[in-house]
Amino acid sequence: MRIAVVLLMGLFVFSSCNKFDKEVEKREIMSLLQQQSLDWNTGNIEAYMQGYWKSETLRFASGDRVTFGWEKTFNNYKKSYPDKITMGKLVFTEITVEILNENSALVFGRWQLYRETDVPHGLFTLHLHKFQEGWKIVSDHTSSGK
Amino acid sequence: MRIAVVLLMGLFVFSSCNKFDKEVEKREIMSLLQQQSLDWNTGNIEAYMQGYWKSETLRFASGDRVTFGWEKTFNNYKKSYPDKITMGKLVFTEITVEILNENSALVFGRWQLYRETDVPHGLFTLHLHKFQEGWKIVSDHTSSGK
Repeated sequence: MRIAVVLLMGLFVFSSCNKFDKEVEKREIMSLLQQQSLDWNTGNIEAYMQGYWKSETLRFASGDRVTFGWEKTFNNYKKSYPDKITMGKLVFTEITVEILNENSALVFGRWQLYRETDVPHGLFTLHLHKFQEGWKIVSDHTSSGK
Repeated sequence: MRIAVVLLMGLFVFSSCNKFDKEVEKREIMSLLQQQSLDWNTGNIEAYMQGYWKSETLRFASGDRVTFGWEKTFNNYKKSYPDKITMGKLVFTEITVEILNENSALVFGRWQLYRETDVPHGLFTLHLHKFQEGWKIVSDHTSSGK
């Protein structure tokens, strides 16, 4: 009987440890995105890139092009946005965070880049994974409008 | 002691029931995509649409446009592809299926539409959920190249 009680207690502790608060996770992800736009808007692409998983398997899909790896993605950003004028002001809107489980989440949203001469804009779908150091984007699919 | 044994057996049965074979799930998802392209290529958009979740919260993102709902998505497809000539031959390539858990998966891939006068092409990111009737696309983000 004592063993049964110990087993039940073990089960209880185990299930408690596995509980997680979806709202807390959502807030963490929202602050990651907020930090990214702040970093972008100070012209710091390297800081912006901290939101991405530093791995060779990071997947970045845009239009018809897929890039694998943090370094390559970083280099593409630097080539496409060589200065503050081309970087413009990045604004994310209509963000939806969907927590799939303890370490997996999807984020849908809309992006706008306010620049002197134009306002490129489009949609993004992000897959985030929770690592020991926190949530990171492991896959980004971005598309733009006309 | 007997209770402990029963509890342990219960735990074993519970964990066995929860086991799932990722390769089996991947094959099911691959066959869903294959069926979709087959249906598309016989000019049957309604059959193609069976791969999508029949819900008002189905999310379809393309370029800069988001559509919610199965019916609206179906209507958009019918408007954009009114006949077999505009539908062309749909081919999916470079497909990667990532099973996140028992009822959640991501699919990345590339699409081409071979038509008489052009070959539109691009990328897609799908989020699938496993319902009682099987896997269905609950979110689709598609982008196209130049």
